[in-house]
Amino acid sequence: MNRPEFIEEIIEGIKPVNQAWMEKARKRTAQLVMPYRALGRLHDIAEKICAIQRTLEPVVDIKGVLVMAADHGVATEGISVFPQEVTASMVTTFLANGAGINAMARHVDAQVWVVDMGIIPDLDINSIKGGRRLKVKKVGNGTASFTGGPAMDRSQAKKAILTGFNLAGSLFEDGIQAVCTGDMGIGNTTSSSAIGMAITGADADEMVGAGTGLDNSGLQHKKEVILKGLKVNEPEPADGLDVLSKLGGFEIGGIAGVVLAGAYYSRPVIIDGFISTAGALIAHTLCPAVTDYLFAGHQSEEPGHKQMLKHLDLKPILDLGMRLGEGTGAALAASVMQAAVKVFNDVMTFDEAGVVKG
Amino acid sequence: MNRPEFIEEIIEGIKPVNQAWMEKARKRTAQLVMPYRALGRLHDIAEKICAIQRTLEPVVDIKGVLVMAADHGVATEGISVFPQEVTASMVTTFLANGAGINAMARHVDAQVWVVDMGIIPDLDINSIKGGRRLKVKKVGNGTASFTGGPAMDRSQAKKAILTGFNLAGSLFEDGIQAVCTGDMGIGNTTSSSAIGMAITGADADEMVGAGTGLDNSGLQHKKEVILKGLKVNEPEPADGLDVLSKLGGFEIGGIAGVVLAGAYYSRPVIIDGFISTAGALIAHTLCPAVTDYLFAGHQSEEPGHKQMLKHLDLKPILDLGMRLGEGTGAALAASVMQAAVKVFNDVMTFDEAGVVKG
Repeated sequence: MNRPEFIEEIIEGIKPVNQAWMEKARKRTAQLVMPYRALGRLHDIAEKICAIQRTLEPVVDIKGVLVMAADHGVATEGISVFPQEVTASMVTTFLANGAGINAMARHVDAQVWVVDMGIIPDLDINSIKGGRRLKVKKVGNGTASFTGGPAMDRSQAKKAILTGFNLAGSLFEDGIQAVCTGDMGIGNTTSSSAIGMAITGADADEMVGAGTGLDNSGLQHKKEVILKGLKVNEPEPADGLDVLSKLGGFEIGGIAGVVLAGAYYSRPVIIDGFISTAGALIAHTLCPAVTDYLFAGHQSEEPGHKQMLKHLDLKPILDLGMRLGEGTGAALAASVMQAAVKVFNDVMTFDEAGVVKG
Repeated sequence: MNRPEFIEEIIEGIKPVNQAWMEKARKRTAQLVMPYRALGRLHDIAEKICAIQRTLEPVVDIKGVLVMAADHGVATEGISVFPQEVTASMVTTFLANGAGINAMARHVDAQVWVVDMGIIPDLDINSIKGGRRLKVKKVGNGTASFTGGPAMDRSQAKKAILTGFNLAGSLFEDGIQAVCTGDMGIGNTTSSSAIGMAITGADADEMVGAGTGLDNSGLQHKKEVILKGLKVNEPEPADGLDVLSKLGGFEIGGIAGVVLAGAYYSRPVIIDGFISTAGALIAHTLCPAVTDYLFAGHQSEEPGHKQMLKHLDLKPILDLGMRLGEGTGAALAASVMQAAVKVFNDVMTFDEAGVVKG
């Protein structure tokens, strides 16, 4: 299909999932040779995939992870225990297959794509290990700090979203059946907390957490920085582009675009933790139907994540106290989704097994 | 090694895990290129496996599921929505690769062994599909109903435990690195609830649930049957063999034996839901150190499971509203454990990645 060029076209192209397929899938589940819905959420997951794919033979075997990386101006405000250059160092680690997401993706048999959505340095992709695998899609060299005004302008926000949409769209067109979102960007829990507060209406105590490991005074400072940014910018909660442009970041916009692509192409998208869910909030503000195509991979240890998922009315698949990002929780959950689909497709019915129904 | 012949020898051979290896493993985790312990429980899991295997190169690639099946005399008391012959029908379904555990095991790349620990019929293994794969280790043709006296005699209880121990021991000797426990037996949530009440001290309202799908009056009747069984038998909570012999069942004894084998052979055992955890309670009563080698695969939807896990001080890995048994929750969790080990083994250190520590 022709790719849309404007966000408005994307939104027009997104429809809620077909409830008739959901019903058909529930009927199939009821025939499986086990007590009624005895595998709980695995049935819900399989049926949602059936509805998305409009089939009773769902499939999520071919999985990809899009790790979106960008820098945040607000990182200069002392809101992270890690220095800003770690964003680029971690990008090189992803390319060298040495990070958490690489190990996790190998385990669940998912391919990883790393995207420079706007890190500060321009990496020399010809000289670093695995460098040619980096997708360079810079929207800028880091955002501006939102404490002094918008993190980016509105056209950059649109560009970030369209970039994410096109990246995921391209994967879907190439046969990837489900995409996991991932992130890297020192300072991005600050940006995500601000987005979460703006869109859900939660306050700083509910939404702001320790990120990579702040102590209490660091956490207090982070809250103050966020409150300042919200006061300076006054983002409009109903306008996802306004929220994104004022609070950042480029990778979060990219993730919002991936979420829109899942809904547009009718493919499951599995969001990771706090930062990915901030991206989903932006996408949801633009088009509420995206949640029909979304799966929450896990419950992040970052406290505000609960508020975000509640706003989206999504239940996390895993709850393992994880708070790494990179797409690790989404990738692990994708494997659970694959198990759900396997059960749906492969388990015999009562009739086939010759077992008396209760 | 020579296999022990008596339960006392097994218990003597079990030692708590080596805390020094746990500490070494925690030090390795702290070097991984990510915020401190950012993968939460995945680190705890990997470190526990390191301590069990006394290594910093843990491995749980080769996984097996032991599905223990047996019949329960108490099934004649109207405590299940399924008739008793479903136990044997499901055994044939397991052998035909058509059940939930078969699909799940294929997904996580685990081999399934089905064991007749004491179902009522003697299946003709030469005439049924996959029949030769059944391990026939009958302790009896179903237990007696515990409402009229003990479900089995003490020598049968010992035999069930030793049978499970030998089956798992044989798998460990053959190179299986982790064993998942599974169960099948109409009436076995009734038996497990009674065991749970006897050992944990929880009351019927806390411990007894709907099993495969009882309505409210069915649930009330089930509680009465269990209370009668406890009154008639007066099991001694500190004596696991007494509890097992009085309340059943053969498959639960088998699972207790598998749990003991994990501790004896220093290999991880992953317990499934309510019935498997009843087996773990029996093993724990015999030898409290078994929990050092145990992983709780998931939180069952059966309400009493929480009480059991609290008694064992184990946190479930997954919580997906599952209540099927068969080993499904354990098998799915085994894959999460494998992910934990992959992260532990494969992720670069800060030094290797050249990333500045926070």
